[in-house]
Amino acid sequence: MIKVGIVGGTGYTGVELLRLLATHPEVQLTAITSRKENGLPVADMYPSLRGRVALAFSAPETARLTECDVVFFATPHGVAMAQARALLDAGVKVIDLAADFRLQDSAQFEKWYGMPHSCPGLLTEAAYGLPELNRAAIKRARIVGNPGCYPTTMQLGFAPLLKAGVVDPAHLIADCKSGVSGAGRKAEIGFLFAEASDNFKAYGISGHRHTPETVEQLQRMTTEKIGLLFSPHLVPMIRGMHSTLYARLTRAIDNQTLQALFEDAYRDEPFVDVMPFGSHPETRSTRGSNMLRLALHRPDDGDMVVVLVVQDNLVKGASGQAVQCMNLMFDLAETTGLLHVPILP
Amino acid sequence: MIKVGIVGGTGYTGVELLRLLATHPEVQLTAITSRKENGLPVADMYPSLRGRVALAFSAPETARLTECDVVFFATPHGVAMAQARALLDAGVKVIDLAADFRLQDSAQFEKWYGMPHSCPGLLTEAAYGLPELNRAAIKRARIVGNPGCYPTTMQLGFAPLLKAGVVDPAHLIADCKSGVSGAGRKAEIGFLFAEASDNFKAYGISGHRHTPETVEQLQRMTTEKIGLLFSPHLVPMIRGMHSTLYARLTRAIDNQTLQALFEDAYRDEPFVDVMPFGSHPETRSTRGSNMLRLALHRPDDGDMVVVLVVQDNLVKGASGQAVQCMNLMFDLAETTGLLHVPILP
Amino acid sequence: MIKVGIVGGTGYTGVELLRLLATHPEVQLTAITSRKENGLPVADMYPSLRGRVALAFSAPETARLTECDVVFFATPHGVAMAQARALLDAGVKVIDLAADFRLQDSAQFEKWYGMPHSCPGLLTEAAYGLPELNRAAIKRARIVGNPGCYPTTMQLGFAPLLKAGVVDPAHLIADCKSGVSGAGRKAEIGFLFAEASDNFKAYGISGHRHTPETVEQLQRMTTEKIGLLFSPHLVPMIRGMHSTLYARLTRAIDNQTLQALFEDAYRDEPFVDVMPFGSHPETRSTRGSNMLRLALHRPDDGDMVVVLVVQDNLVKGASGQAVQCMNLMFDLAETTGLLHVPILP
Amino acid sequence: MIKVGIVGGTGYTGVELLRLLATHPEVQLTAITSRKENGLPVADMYPSLRGRVALAFSAPETARLTECDVVFFATPHGVAMAQARALLDAGVKVIDLAADFRLQDSAQFEKWYGMPHSCPGLLTEAAYGLPELNRAAIKRARIVGNPGCYPTTMQLGFAPLLKAGVVDPAHLIADCKSGVSGAGRKAEIGFLFAEASDNFKAYGISGHRHTPETVEQLQRMTTEKIGLLFSPHLVPMIRGMHSTLYARLTRAIDNQTLQALFEDAYRDEPFVDVMPFGSHPETRSTRGSNMLRLALHRPDDGDMVVVLVVQDNLVKGASGQAVQCMNLMFDLAETTGLLHVPILP
Repeated sequence: MIKVGIVGGTGYTGVELLRLLATHPEVQLTAITSRKENGLPVADMYPSLRGRVALAFSAPETARLTECDVVFFATPHGVAMAQARALLDAGVKVIDLAADFRLQDSAQFEKWYGMPHSCPGLLTEAAYGLPELNRAAIKRARIVGNPGCYPTTMQLGFAPLLKAGVVDPAHLIADCKSGVSGAGRKAEIGFLFAEASDNFKAYGISGHRHTPETVEQLQRMTTEKIGLLFSPHLVPMIRGMHSTLYARLTRAIDNQTLQALFEDAYRDEPFVDVMPFGSHPETRSTRGSNMLRLALHRPDDGDMVVVLVVQDNLVKGASGQAVQCMNLMFDLAETTGLLHVPILP
Repeated sequence: MIKVGIVGGTGYTGVELLRLLATHPEVQLTAITSRKENGLPVADMYPSLRGRVALAFSAPETARLTECDVVFFATPHGVAMAQARALLDAGVKVIDLAADFRLQDSAQFEKWYGMPHSCPGLLTEAAYGLPELNRAAIKRARIVGNPGCYPTTMQLGFAPLLKAGVVDPAHLIADCKSGVSGAGRKAEIGFLFAEASDNFKAYGISGHRHTPETVEQLQRMTTEKIGLLFSPHLVPMIRGMHSTLYARLTRAIDNQTLQALFEDAYRDEPFVDVMPFGSHPETRSTRGSNMLRLALHRPDDGDMVVVLVVQDNLVKGASGQAVQCMNLMFDLAETTGLLHVPILP
Repeated sequence: MIKVGIVGGTGYTGVELLRLLATHPEVQLTAITSRKENGLPVADMYPSLRGRVALAFSAPETARLTECDVVFFATPHGVAMAQARALLDAGVKVIDLAADFRLQDSAQFEKWYGMPHSCPGLLTEAAYGLPELNRAAIKRARIVGNPGCYPTTMQLGFAPLLKAGVVDPAHLIADCKSGVSGAGRKAEIGFLFAEASDNFKAYGISGHRHTPETVEQLQRMTTEKIGLLFSPHLVPMIRGMHSTLYARLTRAIDNQTLQALFEDAYRDEPFVDVMPFGSHPETRSTRGSNMLRLALHRPDDGDMVVVLVVQDNLVKGASGQAVQCMNLMFDLAETTGLLHVPILP
Repeated sequence: MIKVGIVGGTGYTGVELLRLLATHPEVQLTAITSRKENGLPVADMYPSLRGRVALAFSAPETARLTECDVVFFATPHGVAMAQARALLDAGVKVIDLAADFRLQDSAQFEKWYGMPHSCPGLLTEAAYGLPELNRAAIKRARIVGNPGCYPTTMQLGFAPLLKAGVVDPAHLIADCKSGVSGAGRKAEIGFLFAEASDNFKAYGISGHRHTPETVEQLQRMTTEKIGLLFSPHLVPMIRGMHSTLYARLTRAIDNQTLQALFEDAYRDEPFVDVMPFGSHPETRSTRGSNMLRLALHRPDDGDMVVVLVVQDNLVKGASGQAVQCMNLMFDLAETTGLLHVPILP
């Protein structure tokens, strides 16, 4: 059994990790830390876990995380990088669900997250935790930076097009829509039910942290310079993410060939579902599961290809993907503990 | 492996059965019928099942249900009673999720469902499928009438009080609230998003089919005459049911004793969670799971006891309970395939 | 034109007052205070008011509220009682939307609101602002305590029954459901979209501040002692309140006579709609308007009468009712500025 | 007073017309037709109108529409064109909220709506009812084709850019999101609460009727050929529409100049609000009102301009715009009866 610790388990990615790990057959939940909730049984904060998770939150000092085999950080940006070195030195693997190990360029990190990176050396070592595009590196990694939710959809949606060199990399557009849980479990006015319900809006149109992360990864797929316009929007739903991706074709290519690019790329991927050409995937078809689904469109048979991508932002977009990485890092079958059937309706 | 057939799997209880059975370790999904959708792969109607359920709908004639070990009816009222006899004769067990085998009094059935009962003999034989109150009968049954969603909450909430004889059975009130999926997957104006969202209303206050079913079962717990006022309401949420039960105490009894009545009754029940006295259970703490949670209140330490009961109406209130019954009927551990952790948020 | 000031206009009752008063033909919006938002144009906080409300928030010190004809307090409990005396002395009328002038018994106020009442003398003078039951007093009042949202529905629903002496006053039950805006515009975890959406729960079952307020008013309608069990619940909708009221009949009375009690009581009331016997009013039928609708039921023709009451909690349950009171205090037609047609869908 | 008839008032644009016209000071509601609901008081179908609209539905034959001054068609496509000629001949003006008079090219109409146009002559005469772009023609029109909801946002968002010739007209992208009421009051599975809630999806990506309508109108603003990629999405909210428009700049232009293009274009428009550069308008800031709000963005100061546009799809996107046209056709102040303050929260 893999002994698992979680640092900062009071937020949504934390409770989602608990949901997934509570039924993972190879995991023993060993420690979960929260300075503020020290001593509180996890199930008192999250009654959904009553009878299923017996752990209580403990203070970071006393959590004995070094006895774990792996520690997940479900914390604000900046926490993991302060603690990762000591854990690695103790032989503990680290998976960070925040942004500390996503950007390999520490200057970009400082620009977008407003703090210096305290262990740039580990950045080089860290693997970017998107299994479908970086599996080998994750398998041998001691430390993984779990991707952002939006970047997961953008990379998996654009990758086959960029790798095949059939679209203009300089003018990619990603119009993305996220459920409110993506904002985390923070007491802010804008995310109140009475504010966010029966409402729709864009945010961060002029700049968002997920742009540099995505560009850095997409750039690995082409020698031409990536230009990405990323527009996030807030949808009045709890979970779910829908990215509508636009790329201009630079070559004559028929729709079957386009479709084949995606089917070939993801044929053996257990968590990527390429739907029939012209489908309209719904976010709910992934609710509670680690599946990402996508479908291609070619409006008016013109020079634009549209890729529709959906996932559950808290699973494939966060905690499920982190568990998928853990499975790889410990040589388990990649789907272990992750075969939940989506909840619909 | 238990070979399972489903008659009428296009509705919400049908797709929920598929979700639960697709990961049940002792089940082999063998047939699913729908005359209208004959030939359509189930996953084409419900993309959430892509890659997880390979079955296609077949016409009832060709479905070879008699080769199954058990057949679930997720059909409108009246269908199961027409087919049950033939299946039983072929040695197939039957679990009906509709009302055909809930009411043991066929006159009541005819009054509330507007049709004669075509096999009143089987009514006598059928077990009422509420395991916590009727486990022994279910274990030995060939045919089970799965309880209504509201009745499940009312019975489990009132039972310890009635059995202990501490409340007035003649003036019970159940003010119940259900998510919209309880209405089924029917194209009716009143259940459109633009009608049911951001709205709350009562319905059926003057009379509802779940009253006679509940009264019939509650009557088994006391020799005094049951009087029940049941008020259903529609909540703008997909899943979830919350019943607020009111009973007048007829004896001096302290709160610890009240609480003990419930804890004793449900101590060994894997799917009933008695929360601390004075708690306020939330429906979402059961979302997607077979758990029912309840908590007691004694406002102003007066003569009224209030029981708050929550469940997922499609799981413990329907398909999960049906699978729980199946487990009992086939001598499996009662929790087999039913230990989903609720999805929260 | 009536010069109107608003103290504390940043919350939901504040912005709703602004919506109503912006189109009130006899009102000149003169001042709105917020220490925290001093200088900010109201329309910058609430873009819905762009082009319609030109005021900016000002600090309380500089707001020149004494130049107003009436000041509304849309503040937390305890603010109005600290400022009311000075305003009254300056000839300004006061309408408090919080609880400072609702409870006439200052001991009850201290018990439930956890602070001493700083001007108990004004309590005696203040009129309870429920026009349908207290119109004459409001008309001549200098100071009005605007009712709570739940108490408005309970009083208007129980009043005809209690006044006619046909029900048992000692065992009233009110099972009430409110939209989330009733919790105000406060950054609390429990009211986040991802917490409150697709969920239903009770709260405050063991005791709620609206109970003593309601009991105090209901007690004026009967010489027998009022006993009220009040159960509030949180509904995943923005606006709207639905109260399901239960009372036991103590006399033989037919349904027509029951219905006539209500029709006679409210025949001339512009904001109370007695629907046909057996109707199920929906909250959305009042959305955005000052209407309260109700309907009677008599399940099984038994000894219980059920009254279903709906309103928009922010209008008839708060700001609309306050404007209705203002109209009375300034001898305007009671409906002035309040004839919005509900928004449906 | 203008005598108004409504053909087909049972849907959402119909009830919204009734809401707006019930308080319009220059309108007398004279007739409303529905063959199916003949004789039913409108307020029985829509309790929100109780006490405010006294009309009953009447059969088309008996409705005496020719005695009206204007008739609104809130009907499925194809109804207005069958009846318009007779009404015009009787001196009655006609405003069609469906598509019969939107497309001036009857071949396009036949292609997209699957039926021949029965009065192509009237197409030429009909004015396209978008006042901000076509006011003079509407003022003198006898017959108006009210724009689609999406086209309203696309035209008002792209117009200043196209007219100024600063963007590439051949590669416009409109990623649009609509509340569910846009689908109308039709009993279809896909729009049930349990299907559409907590979900997000695209639809019609490969082709949608609003594309040719929009292209036809945009083409009037430039001599270059318009190319428009329009992607509609369904948002789990009742009302509201958000269009995210992308255009590539073809000239060096600074942000102030861009902003000035819009402010100059809409300075005198009562129903178009140009928000500060870089704002993120929310749909709810227009809920229940005839306002359309928009804001500009220039991500990374690059060559793409993004226009965010919001409106209430049932008001400015349908019935409010129709009333605005009526006001123009009858020489009333354009804002008459349309100055509702948006409902927020």
